[in-house]
Amino acid sequence: MLRFMKKRSLKIGLPPGEAVYVGEACPWAPQLRIIDFDADNLEECETIEASDIVPYKEKSTVTWIDISGIHRVEAIKKLSDIFKWHALVVEDVVNTDHHCKMEEYDDYIFLVLKMIRFDESAKQIGKEQISVIFGSNYVVTFREKKDEFWAPIMNRLRSSRGRIRRMGADYLAYAIFDLIVDYYFDVLEKVGFEIEDLEDELIREPQKITMNHIHSINKELLLFRKTVWPLREVAGRLAEGEHDLIQEMTLPFMRDLHDHVIQVIDTGEAFREVISNLLNLYISQISNRMNEVMKVLTIFAAIFIPLTFMAGIYGMNFDVMPELHAPYGYPILLGAMLTVACGMLYFFRRRNWF
Amino acid sequence: MLRFMKKRSLKIGLPPGEAVYVGEACPWAPQLRIIDFDADNLEECETIEASDIVPYKEKSTVTWIDISGIHRVEAIKKLSDIFKWHALVVEDVVNTDHHCKMEEYDDYIFLVLKMIRFDESAKQIGKEQISVIFGSNYVVTFREKKDEFWAPIMNRLRSSRGRIRRMGADYLAYAIFDLIVDYYFDVLEKVGFEIEDLEDELIREPQKITMNHIHSINKELLLFRKTVWPLREVAGRLAEGEHDLIQEMTLPFMRDLHDHVIQVIDTGEAFREVISNLLNLYISQISNRMNEVMKVLTIFAAIFIPLTFMAGIYGMNFDVMPELHAPYGYPILLGAMLTVACGMLYFFRRRNWF
Amino acid sequence: MLRFMKKRSLKIGLPPGEAVYVGEACPWAPQLRIIDFDADNLEECETIEASDIVPYKEKSTVTWIDISGIHRVEAIKKLSDIFKWHALVVEDVVNTDHHCKMEEYDDYIFLVLKMIRFDESAKQIGKEQISVIFGSNYVVTFREKKDEFWAPIMNRLRSSRGRIRRMGADYLAYAIFDLIVDYYFDVLEKVGFEIEDLEDELIREPQKITMNHIHSINKELLLFRKTVWPLREVAGRLAEGEHDLIQEMTLPFMRDLHDHVIQVIDTGEAFREVISNLLNLYISQISNRMNEVMKVLTIFAAIFIPLTFMAGIYGMNFDVMPELHAPYGYPILLGAMLTVACGMLYFFRRRNWF
Amino acid sequence: MLRFMKKRSLKIGLPPGEAVYVGEACPWAPQLRIIDFDADNLEECETIEASDIVPYKEKSTVTWIDISGIHRVEAIKKLSDIFKWHALVVEDVVNTDHHCKMEEYDDYIFLVLKMIRFDESAKQIGKEQISVIFGSNYVVTFREKKDEFWAPIMNRLRSSRGRIRRMGADYLAYAIFDLIVDYYFDVLEKVGFEIEDLEDELIREPQKITMNHIHSINKELLLFRKTVWPLREVAGRLAEGEHDLIQEMTLPFMRDLHDHVIQVIDTGEAFREVISNLLNLYISQISNRMNEVMKVLTIFAAIFIPLTFMAGIYGMNFDVMPELHAPYGYPILLGAMLTVACGMLYFFRRRNWF
Amino acid sequence: MLRFMKKRSLKIGLPPGEAVYVGEACPWAPQLRIIDFDADNLEECETIEASDIVPYKEKSTVTWIDISGIHRVEAIKKLSDIFKWHALVVEDVVNTDHHCKMEEYDDYIFLVLKMIRFDESAKQIGKEQISVIFGSNYVVTFREKKDEFWAPIMNRLRSSRGRIRRMGADYLAYAIFDLIVDYYFDVLEKVGFEIEDLEDELIREPQKITMNHIHSINKELLLFRKTVWPLREVAGRLAEGEHDLIQEMTLPFMRDLHDHVIQVIDTGEAFREVISNLLNLYISQISNRMNEVMKVLTIFAAIFIPLTFMAGIYGMNFDVMPELHAPYGYPILLGAMLTVACGMLYFFRRRNWF
Repeated sequence: MLRFMKKRSLKIGLPPGEAVYVGEACPWAPQLRIIDFDADNLEECETIEASDIVPYKEKSTVTWIDISGIHRVEAIKKLSDIFKWHALVVEDVVNTDHHCKMEEYDDYIFLVLKMIRFDESAKQIGKEQISVIFGSNYVVTFREKKDEFWAPIMNRLRSSRGRIRRMGADYLAYAIFDLIVDYYFDVLEKVGFEIEDLEDELIREPQKITMNHIHSINKELLLFRKTVWPLREVAGRLAEGEHDLIQEMTLPFMRDLHDHVIQVIDTGEAFREVISNLLNLYISQISNRMNEVMKVLTIFAAIFIPLTFMAGIYGMNFDVMPELHAPYGYPILLGAMLTVACGMLYFFRRRNWF
Repeated sequence: MLRFMKKRSLKIGLPPGEAVYVGEACPWAPQLRIIDFDADNLEECETIEASDIVPYKEKSTVTWIDISGIHRVEAIKKLSDIFKWHALVVEDVVNTDHHCKMEEYDDYIFLVLKMIRFDESAKQIGKEQISVIFGSNYVVTFREKKDEFWAPIMNRLRSSRGRIRRMGADYLAYAIFDLIVDYYFDVLEKVGFEIEDLEDELIREPQKITMNHIHSINKELLLFRKTVWPLREVAGRLAEGEHDLIQEMTLPFMRDLHDHVIQVIDTGEAFREVISNLLNLYISQISNRMNEVMKVLTIFAAIFIPLTFMAGIYGMNFDVMPELHAPYGYPILLGAMLTVACGMLYFFRRRNWF
Repeated sequence: MLRFMKKRSLKIGLPPGEAVYVGEACPWAPQLRIIDFDADNLEECETIEASDIVPYKEKSTVTWIDISGIHRVEAIKKLSDIFKWHALVVEDVVNTDHHCKMEEYDDYIFLVLKMIRFDESAKQIGKEQISVIFGSNYVVTFREKKDEFWAPIMNRLRSSRGRIRRMGADYLAYAIFDLIVDYYFDVLEKVGFEIEDLEDELIREPQKITMNHIHSINKELLLFRKTVWPLREVAGRLAEGEHDLIQEMTLPFMRDLHDHVIQVIDTGEAFREVISNLLNLYISQISNRMNEVMKVLTIFAAIFIPLTFMAGIYGMNFDVMPELHAPYGYPILLGAMLTVACGMLYFFRRRNWF
Repeated sequence: MLRFMKKRSLKIGLPPGEAVYVGEACPWAPQLRIIDFDADNLEECETIEASDIVPYKEKSTVTWIDISGIHRVEAIKKLSDIFKWHALVVEDVVNTDHHCKMEEYDDYIFLVLKMIRFDESAKQIGKEQISVIFGSNYVVTFREKKDEFWAPIMNRLRSSRGRIRRMGADYLAYAIFDLIVDYYFDVLEKVGFEIEDLEDELIREPQKITMNHIHSINKELLLFRKTVWPLREVAGRLAEGEHDLIQEMTLPFMRDLHDHVIQVIDTGEAFREVISNLLNLYISQISNRMNEVMKVLTIFAAIFIPLTFMAGIYGMNFDVMPELHAPYGYPILLGAMLTVACGMLYFFRRRNWF
Repeated sequence: MLRFMKKRSLKIGLPPGEAVYVGEACPWAPQLRIIDFDADNLEECETIEASDIVPYKEKSTVTWIDISGIHRVEAIKKLSDIFKWHALVVEDVVNTDHHCKMEEYDDYIFLVLKMIRFDESAKQIGKEQISVIFGSNYVVTFREKKDEFWAPIMNRLRSSRGRIRRMGADYLAYAIFDLIVDYYFDVLEKVGFEIEDLEDELIREPQKITMNHIHSINKELLLFRKTVWPLREVAGRLAEGEHDLIQEMTLPFMRDLHDHVIQVIDTGEAFREVISNLLNLYISQISNRMNEVMKVLTIFAAIFIPLTFMAGIYGMNFDVMPELHAPYGYPILLGAMLTVACGMLYFFRRRNWF
């Protein structure tokens, strides 16, 4: 079942800035992967010690620190001390129930993003919070899980020819955001296929569809929308590029990103309207089927009830019923019954009932 | 039954600024709790005399005056005279039917907030108006009831290490607002569970759900929304921090609060959409069940009405009915009846009626 | 029947500024009540001559001229000449079909307000247009009817202690507006009770409710909304206080008024949503009741139609029907019938049909 | 049938500014009526030659040129050359499929307006495009048809006392716009009566109403709205009076006009909501009537089907049926049948079915 | 089946600015058509070599380069190098899944437009992306297909008298945009006819309509809206004319274009409302037909079930049934049956059931 909230009641009355991890407990230790690069060189290492990143702090090269696993709050706090982030930043990084947002500080920008992926095994949409903090020469990303999610960007970094090696930390942050938005398109595409299948079935074999199916897609879209909507503002503010950290050179890319986000949102809204149309289609089909059922009943009843009555008449035991003794009484009655039945059929036929 | 308004008709034509308490009558005397603190010292006392607070007025330490019970209007007026508040402030404090709002005066800010708590015993949402007035060195809070609602903040104040002791009155006001917003999350969480239970039932045992259940959650959400919506503007204006009373240092916290309020509102809206989807699900299930009922009826009628007619034919008393005297007339008729019945069943089967 | 428009077709092509009274014809002469006051003195008189107010025009005291009855257009024109109002002002005063609006001129402000009262005798909402024009030292109010509507304000004026005697014409205009808004709360309260009664009935005795009841409340709310909506802008512009006529001192009161108007509008909107929920509740109850009716029919039909068929079989007159001559044929058949009936009941029971 | 578009496909790829008349073909020649006036004199003539207006062009008096019939494009082009209008102006004048709009040029303002009239003979709403171009000393109006539509304004002009003779071209343009808006009120009034009739019938004789009636009013309102909506912006921009052509003196009239347009739009929207409520009322009445039909059926079936079964029992031909030979068997059975029937009636009565 | 998205999942993680063609594979080579013109001369040639356009780059005449076919990305890249466009421009040109947008660069403006045409053969709406890039002396257009789409503009260019020859590149871009908008009107016109046909049928022969028809028009309109909506902003920004490339002289045309786009959008929205009304009409007709069916059933059942019961009574075999032996028993019973039947008919007649 898709959830719209995580358990927060634990937090009532805690001082703000008190970082509390609200996700599932994880047994593994969070990992730091450090990639330090400029146009010419690239250095890459993995560690579990936050203090290992100190030497990179003052270098003019761009350093990408990717943290997988945010369930050890102390490690993140140590990092925060090194980079001198605001106390609320750490709180928001570990509180995975946050919506997307952007906080601008003097020398760094803090982004809370939501990654949405279609989990093939569970056949449902999976969410993950990805926090990005970038300053003039570093980008720090926080993920809940550890897998090869960043591979496309890492590969582009490792190749010495890519534009990504020549641009600054803001472009790397853009590339990270863009990768996440690409996944939105992927999810939309899959939901789009689901909707088309549903529509197909609804038109060809309406009786097989259950309302539950429509409802579940609707819920997915609602969750999708709730996640994506706040992105519009985040991307919009990045595209305006008022913060000094975003260079002139990166701006067209940020505007392109903004465009993509708007397209994602618009497509999601269009899907919601399609679903709403399908719901109308479904409901009208239920009514139509009811009409069909009623017609079958009415045709049967209207034909056989009068006939049964006629048979009932001549089943009576009155002493004086001259028809019973007429030699052709029986075939005449059968003929009359046939006439009535045909008359009924003609009546319903003319009313287009079948 | 949830109410959307309190009785106000008593107030027609009264001069504005005329404070009239519109809540329930309370037998107990309102209580004042005074907490005076700076980073080093904390002084705490309880009283029922408004004049006891005069000595704290000029001290540079932050003084928190918490009033439980607003049904004695004179005591509040006395307080108002001491702090020189506008006449309308007192009116708004005791008029518990107000929506959330923020009034900025030169040397103090007046907030009307609504606390929402899920009352476990009454199994429904309870509302309480909390008014907060803060100046440069004091915070005054007004509550309708008396209980340990403020305990989390009090405890943080009593501990000498907390950030709250080192920041000013504006931060205390923020902490108070934040506590109230935490309760919104708590209520949303509970409503969220209710909705999930409802959805579960609706999918597994649709016949047990009554529309009344959906309706009551819907009403709760409507009330919730009516309460929370005006908070968006209040929190937004605090986050802009244009008033001198809100220090630069407190601003990131106010912005965080604004974020939380928006998240509360968005989640509430998402819940409303889920409920609206569930309503569609419910209505389509009623129609589907009607379809089922009709199909059962039609199948029975369409099978047995023709058979009864056939039996009726041979119950007639015509003198000349040769079939009646045929030695195998009876078994042949029974066979014909079986054929008709099977034909009907096959017809309905092919139409996927059962 | 509530009306949304008054007859206007008479006015096609008339020159603008041509004052035409569009209300009902009234036999009585319009009355002027003049109240002239400052903090120390209060003078009060009644007249039917517009020219009587000339002496008050140049006095520094505040003069309130209340006109009851706007069906004698010439009297209003004479007044207009004395105060030098724009020709359109008179047109708008007598055209009672106008929506609420505010027109700012250099030395006076013109307000068109709508008073809404629950007419106890007619059991419906009654509307009346109240026009207010205020300058630096006068307030002129126009009403359609004559009754003691202004009594609360008059009484406050007559008492020498009230704030209203010490403030200027703008505060008096505020008090007038505030009284009208108080009546909105009153109407909302009554509509709120109606809605709660309806909800109660709908849950306890659904079959008694007619859709017409829901429809009539809905229409009341629609009319209420159409009337109140434009007030938001009027109150908002007063609260901004950009016109010189609104003194600094009066501003907090104007802001309070604006707050009240917003609360009125929000409550009205919430009521509309409640009604829309009740409509859903009602419609689902109709469907549920239909389901109940259908189930009763189906249970009866499904039980008795097969039994009747069985009885029909043994009512046939075939020569050779061995069962008829079996000594226990009759009780065995009765037993079989009972079995079928119980089987049916069990089937419907398991499907939770009763 | 009301149309939302006129045929435009002819225009694909034509150069912009290429004037193509898209209305119906007309056999009569367009007519020009010239009225030249100042406060003292008024001169009036009719012609079919565009060049006749040249002498009036440089006069300081206000000249109103009213063209009836826009199907001769060359005449309009000649006029355009005289007044030096932009090529697009002529295109928009003859393209009667345009929505309302306002184009400001340096020395003239171009308005496209839509006149709506309730055509009594055709019993439906008729539309006509009226284009108005006014400069400092002239107003040119274009109409599609020729009739006495302008009579009210002409009459006011002919009378030497009216305000219209003393004000400039902008005031004449205002008077023209105002006349058109007066017709909107007229149409709204008629639609309002139609809605009230519909509501009346729906409450008193629901079975007579057809959905088609609701649908046709709905469509009228939709057309009305589509026409009127763009007027809001046109009137708003005139009311702001930023163009030099609109004199200070005319501004209050323009603001009044803006108010009227907003009132027209609001009333139209209110009507749409009333219609939507009536639709709900209608749909719930259909459902209720269905319920009634089902109840009648169920009551009949539930009473007579068991009775028929009982009669069927004693119509069987078993050799051994002791009840048949009991002397009071028949009256006892009749009594039992009566009991069953009464029991059923009592059961349905208690359920409030009749 | 109409599609809302094209396959994009291939693109996850690709560097931005990486041009990937997402349309269908095409076997033919893209073609360049170059038209170079000023008021006096026009030169026209076709090529497949991008480098052929270099000589035109520095000429002061306006050069229109029309590329048919965007599936060869390298050719477009070569062009981009010649004109020094941003890397993202090429990406957007070949990504035909983009929505309409406008990107302003220093010395060129990039428009992504969507052409919509009613494909007569496939009986559905076909979409094509048309990208337009224009600088001070060139316009480059990219189309997916090759046909004579541009013919109307080409013909106007070839004629030496047209305005298009005397204006600059911005006017040519306007003419291109205008042609595309003309096609929107064409599609709307066709959809409008479809809707009118549907409405006609719905009113005259409701049983023939299937919900699928309504659904498919609805989907077309949704697609139309999704395509056209972003155009509003594009046209709006062109009409503001803030970019130096848009000359003063072209501005009235751009504003006219903006007007047309708004009219297209408004008409589309009006159509959506008409469809929504038709849906209500359709659903109420289903319910009405159900009512009819139920009435037929109920009338038959209510008339014949009591009669059959009466016949059943006298079919019983009780020894003592005096009525059976009465000489006029049979005709009296028949009379009673007739009375019951007529009573029933009268009852249903009075209830207006037939």
